[in-house]
Amino acid sequence: MNEGNAHLQQTITQLIDAGRFFFDQGWVPATSGNFSARLASTCMIVTVSGWHKGQLNSEGMLVTDFNASPLSATNKRPSAEALLHGTLYRRFPEINAIFHTHSVYATVLSCLLPNELILSDYELLKILPGIKTHQISVRIPIFPNDQDISRLSIVVDDYLAQTPDSPGYLIAGHGLYTWGGSVEQARHRVEALEFLFECEVLRRRL
Amino acid sequence: MNEGNAHLQQTITQLIDAGRFFFDQGWVPATSGNFSARLASTCMIVTVSGWHKGQLNSEGMLVTDFNASPLSATNKRPSAEALLHGTLYRRFPEINAIFHTHSVYATVLSCLLPNELILSDYELLKILPGIKTHQISVRIPIFPNDQDISRLSIVVDDYLAQTPDSPGYLIAGHGLYTWGGSVEQARHRVEALEFLFECEVLRRRL
Amino acid sequence: MNEGNAHLQQTITQLIDAGRFFFDQGWVPATSGNFSARLASTCMIVTVSGWHKGQLNSEGMLVTDFNASPLSATNKRPSAEALLHGTLYRRFPEINAIFHTHSVYATVLSCLLPNELILSDYELLKILPGIKTHQISVRIPIFPNDQDISRLSIVVDDYLAQTPDSPGYLIAGHGLYTWGGSVEQARHRVEALEFLFECEVLRRRL
Amino acid sequence: MNEGNAHLQQTITQLIDAGRFFFDQGWVPATSGNFSARLASTCMIVTVSGWHKGQLNSEGMLVTDFNASPLSATNKRPSAEALLHGTLYRRFPEINAIFHTHSVYATVLSCLLPNELILSDYELLKILPGIKTHQISVRIPIFPNDQDISRLSIVVDDYLAQTPDSPGYLIAGHGLYTWGGSVEQARHRVEALEFLFECEVLRRRL
Repeated sequence: MNEGNAHLQQTITQLIDAGRFFFDQGWVPATSGNFSARLASTCMIVTVSGWHKGQLNSEGMLVTDFNASPLSATNKRPSAEALLHGTLYRRFPEINAIFHTHSVYATVLSCLLPNELILSDYELLKILPGIKTHQISVRIPIFPNDQDISRLSIVVDDYLAQTPDSPGYLIAGHGLYTWGGSVEQARHRVEALEFLFECEVLRRRL
Repeated sequence: MNEGNAHLQQTITQLIDAGRFFFDQGWVPATSGNFSARLASTCMIVTVSGWHKGQLNSEGMLVTDFNASPLSATNKRPSAEALLHGTLYRRFPEINAIFHTHSVYATVLSCLLPNELILSDYELLKILPGIKTHQISVRIPIFPNDQDISRLSIVVDDYLAQTPDSPGYLIAGHGLYTWGGSVEQARHRVEALEFLFECEVLRRRL
Repeated sequence: MNEGNAHLQQTITQLIDAGRFFFDQGWVPATSGNFSARLASTCMIVTVSGWHKGQLNSEGMLVTDFNASPLSATNKRPSAEALLHGTLYRRFPEINAIFHTHSVYATVLSCLLPNELILSDYELLKILPGIKTHQISVRIPIFPNDQDISRLSIVVDDYLAQTPDSPGYLIAGHGLYTWGGSVEQARHRVEALEFLFECEVLRRRL
Repeated sequence: MNEGNAHLQQTITQLIDAGRFFFDQGWVPATSGNFSARLASTCMIVTVSGWHKGQLNSEGMLVTDFNASPLSATNKRPSAEALLHGTLYRRFPEINAIFHTHSVYATVLSCLLPNELILSDYELLKILPGIKTHQISVRIPIFPNDQDISRLSIVVDDYLAQTPDSPGYLIAGHGLYTWGGSVEQARHRVEALEFLFECEVLRRRL
């Protein structure tokens, strides 16, 4: 096995592990959620449409370009939202992995709040890129849901062009997108943001 | 092993797995819940009365007709609500598996809401049959609980005759019935609906 | 191994399994909770004081009479509340197993409600002894906590002498006692009552 | 293996187990939390900065003095808050293990309450040091978060000099510190306090 294959195998294993963990947390119910990792400057591996993320295996992923077109002939289709992944890889060369999770807390907060969620005063914010203190306000934008993913990807990309240090975004009634320089880093950001969403729900109830 | 036996074995394994998963989620406490799968146009396999669904094995299921009468002599009885399963198989030839779960969220929503639960604007609604967009309102009817299952099955069947595209129903203080073309599809719908019940409870509290 | 030993071994295994399960649910945090099973008309096996119920083994149990006195010389002490178990076995010959769990929901409800918790209209009530319908009100008494277990056991026993069909009781800020004709039956009643406590908390919040 | 090594190996195993358990409970999301154990009168083993506590191994810990300086040359750094651990070991010779957890309930309560959390009337308070009855009020102080750990450790140490029987403390938006005479005892106190934080949140909502 050459070095590229070994790296690909490790990436697949990390995505499978993340899927099992996220499912056990209730963050990717049924066939929701989608995951990806950058393989090179113009292609990515991304989860197949309709697969259960708690039961991923290598058959549940395929390689596409950043327009979400498969690199080789296949009867599989990538997740409907794969274009949102490609758009992120194209814009930010430092991103190497992206997770979309679909938790109760993210779903409900993104339905109830109009445009954004502001996170302040949490020590755990220091997990997010470039943040060194809890004395800060981090803005998570909330975009309206849209079944036209091309149109949605343009809305998101325009926002991120102007706000490149966003640590993630929410889609209303749908969930979280976040990313990192590695699969591990992206997974830690999912853990941190889902934790903070739960804190925000609890604070609003007390 | 012939093909029919292999299919039966796989179905049994899928029902056992579903039971363990639902129990771990808290959706079938004690001996609550019941599960079935269609075996042919006139018979089904269904869980035995009083079995714990987190500890199912093949002894915990039996084969009955759609009136819930065992096909062969046995000292086991099917779940009290087996007739609700048979009625669904008789009405809808495309249904091949049915799950009744009994979660806290389904129990409480079905006690508090008078006739129905309306689900709107959730991306996860697209898991349900025939739904292509979140911009829709899905109606889950809530029937009063009744210890007379024959009478309850007529009430439910009359409703479904008029509303054949319902994705499931609730019984007050009792829980969810949902179904699918396969055990896997029915299980995904349980996951999606239980997730949405939790979202609905949380939205009402915020 | 003779028959009595085989039965004892099975009982120990069932109590160990129940401890692991209850701990995973968060119902016996730290060293809280205590469990027992009747061995004969005048003795019981009961958990040792200070053991973690998620990590029970046969060293974590000992045999005592119904006054909670060990039957043989030992440096172990039974759980402080063992006398509550013995009192139940003495009063009700049909009880063969008792669980005391210590969940968040039981703790909070028993702190907030003055004398009793009334459970009505739940299908799951049918798990409790002698109940055939959801159209019933079941009373779970709540006793004030007391570090004097002899005094507390008299209060409880006087109550149960007058209300022998109670399915369990709560001690304020402390948790649930429930029982059954077998370890399995007692465990199902724990599952059912803890589920109903969670439903009651949720109903009061909506 | 000599006796000191055997004890060190056991301590490492207990910290790894605690990390996995705390992570499964959601109490150390992402790379949050830090753990330590006293090795001798002037040194401790403490978790390495940036390690995930659910995936600890012996590489994820290092030995430092009570100023948090490594005892041997290494490219690893201890957790940023290691000085808070050293300060506790220096003040209280009876402390042999310290856990810092970072749960949703501790985070939210410590954000919302101004100076302290008072715990009363819970049976589980008897897990805390020196407490024999539920009829008591236990004070958990809440300190403002501070990225300057030297300054924070002085604030905490001054408080504990005057209130030496505190069972733990909270840092606002950050979580719990608690300790014990052994790793096992410290872990039981984490379990008890996190349980009581959840009870307190629930009581405030009802």
